[in-house]
Amino acid sequence: MDTTKGGQDMLAGHCLEDLSVGMTAVFSRTVTEADIVLFSAISGDLNPIHVNEEYARETMFKGRIAHGILTASLISAVLGNQLPGPGCIYLSQSLKFLAPVKAGDTVTARATVTEILPEKKRVVLKTECLVEEKLVLDGEAVLVVPSRS
Amino acid sequence: MDTTKGGQDMLAGHCLEDLSVGMTAVFSRTVTEADIVLFSAISGDLNPIHVNEEYARETMFKGRIAHGILTASLISAVLGNQLPGPGCIYLSQSLKFLAPVKAGDTVTARATVTEILPEKKRVVLKTECLVEEKLVLDGEAVLVVPSRS
Amino acid sequence: MDTTKGGQDMLAGHCLEDLSVGMTAVFSRTVTEADIVLFSAISGDLNPIHVNEEYARETMFKGRIAHGILTASLISAVLGNQLPGPGCIYLSQSLKFLAPVKAGDTVTARATVTEILPEKKRVVLKTECLVEEKLVLDGEAVLVVPSRS
Amino acid sequence: MDTTKGGQDMLAGHCLEDLSVGMTAVFSRTVTEADIVLFSAISGDLNPIHVNEEYARETMFKGRIAHGILTASLISAVLGNQLPGPGCIYLSQSLKFLAPVKAGDTVTARATVTEILPEKKRVVLKTECLVEEKLVLDGEAVLVVPSRS
Repeated sequence: MDTTKGGQDMLAGHCLEDLSVGMTAVFSRTVTEADIVLFSAISGDLNPIHVNEEYARETMFKGRIAHGILTASLISAVLGNQLPGPGCIYLSQSLKFLAPVKAGDTVTARATVTEILPEKKRVVLKTECLVEEKLVLDGEAVLVVPSRS
Repeated sequence: MDTTKGGQDMLAGHCLEDLSVGMTAVFSRTVTEADIVLFSAISGDLNPIHVNEEYARETMFKGRIAHGILTASLISAVLGNQLPGPGCIYLSQSLKFLAPVKAGDTVTARATVTEILPEKKRVVLKTECLVEEKLVLDGEAVLVVPSRS
Repeated sequence: MDTTKGGQDMLAGHCLEDLSVGMTAVFSRTVTEADIVLFSAISGDLNPIHVNEEYARETMFKGRIAHGILTASLISAVLGNQLPGPGCIYLSQSLKFLAPVKAGDTVTARATVTEILPEKKRVVLKTECLVEEKLVLDGEAVLVVPSRS
Repeated sequence: MDTTKGGQDMLAGHCLEDLSVGMTAVFSRTVTEADIVLFSAISGDLNPIHVNEEYARETMFKGRIAHGILTASLISAVLGNQLPGPGCIYLSQSLKFLAPVKAGDTVTARATVTEILPEKKRVVLKTECLVEEKLVLDGEAVLVVPSRS
């Protein structure tokens, strides 16, 4: 699932020494109505913009939209599965919700290394979600990554 | 969400004019193994720290932990259902992951109004998640809220 | 569920002394195909009218319909979340299934207090589900409600 | 899945002429924490007695319980799958909630024909749910059943 290295063990992510500024990884999936229903369950967020089509149709969004944090969860996938992958510890995430995501939209989450802080064993990544060419979510993640030394 | 007291329509959250600094709302639920499984499915985040007990047992966490973004989803519930509630638009969220959450932990998400920007129709809330007395997640949300004027 | 207005604690619903005949509450959501799939899983009700489009298309319903008990579950939401809300104990429910509900229909569940029995600490509510203006489910709920005395 | 007839087509339930007073069918399954999480999602019922272990532990139930309508959904399974099975139309259901059901309890739903109304093509069934020997839910179902004539 990692396009940035060959032969990676699913249980072993990148060590600090493997990382360099500019490395990138992507994960894409189609957000479905079922995802929105299940996310409502997990979160308890029953805002009518997510669960009530009659209400949502009358808003500026013209229909139900996915929860912003649901879209953000795809960033969690690209970080947790691929870059840096297993072994990292998630310290922080900032999220700017730029445009709505609807059921049927295919979202691509992309993470790009922007900074490496060796003394703190931290890595900073630019994290973005796109639908076609449109940026729908923007932010930054900071993680601790294991070091070989 | 209660139409019978305080006069609030469940499809209409707070207007800007209803809000004041210091207002607070909470939502609590027990995070279950099922939530972690479903969140893994929705997000695609299959990091072994969340889905592989044998792997997770050998880490500093001594077992599987919930995804940080799963915990953050309870903030979405308190904002979307209660404060400011239906009608708001989520602009941004910052998240600091301070401590792990495990299946069986009861998480309380709390939102507190810290700033109101009337000219931009925005409200800023401090957003926290606690397990018992311990702060596990900290951050800030910014939303646009409808105005009566 | 809103701790910021009317003084209600989200973990404390209405006490018997708060209730009066004619009080009402509503909850609306769109029933999705995902809800029907998940309800089939939870219940084990795999009747082809719910899960087999080819079969269902040949019936008087012209396609799959939601389980009647799924529609009834929205009554559980309005009673459990709002009126009487947390602290109540559900004693009985009668259900008349009046018309089919399909994926995509937005169902509004409405509960109205019709009788209060103070000596038994019981409340009786008329419970109805509507799709647009059409009554699809009708019935009555009886609950025990906590009393301050 | 039908113990009352041999060789039944999954798409063809009992006709009125196949039924007699005293016929019975049962369906049993273990209610899991995952079922309770998913039912909360479908219904929108987030009452803390179902989703908040800390709250529920302090109540007379000493922990989270399944939604009453979730237990009732097993009756839907026995009626919809077996007796009368596919082809029937659900007219009404009464439910008395007699005792709580918890995650891990194995519930047996049993339906027994008590009355046949040939002129209206209706069948009346006694519907019960048991955990071990204990009756947890009691009620009556009325359905329309296809007739060969």
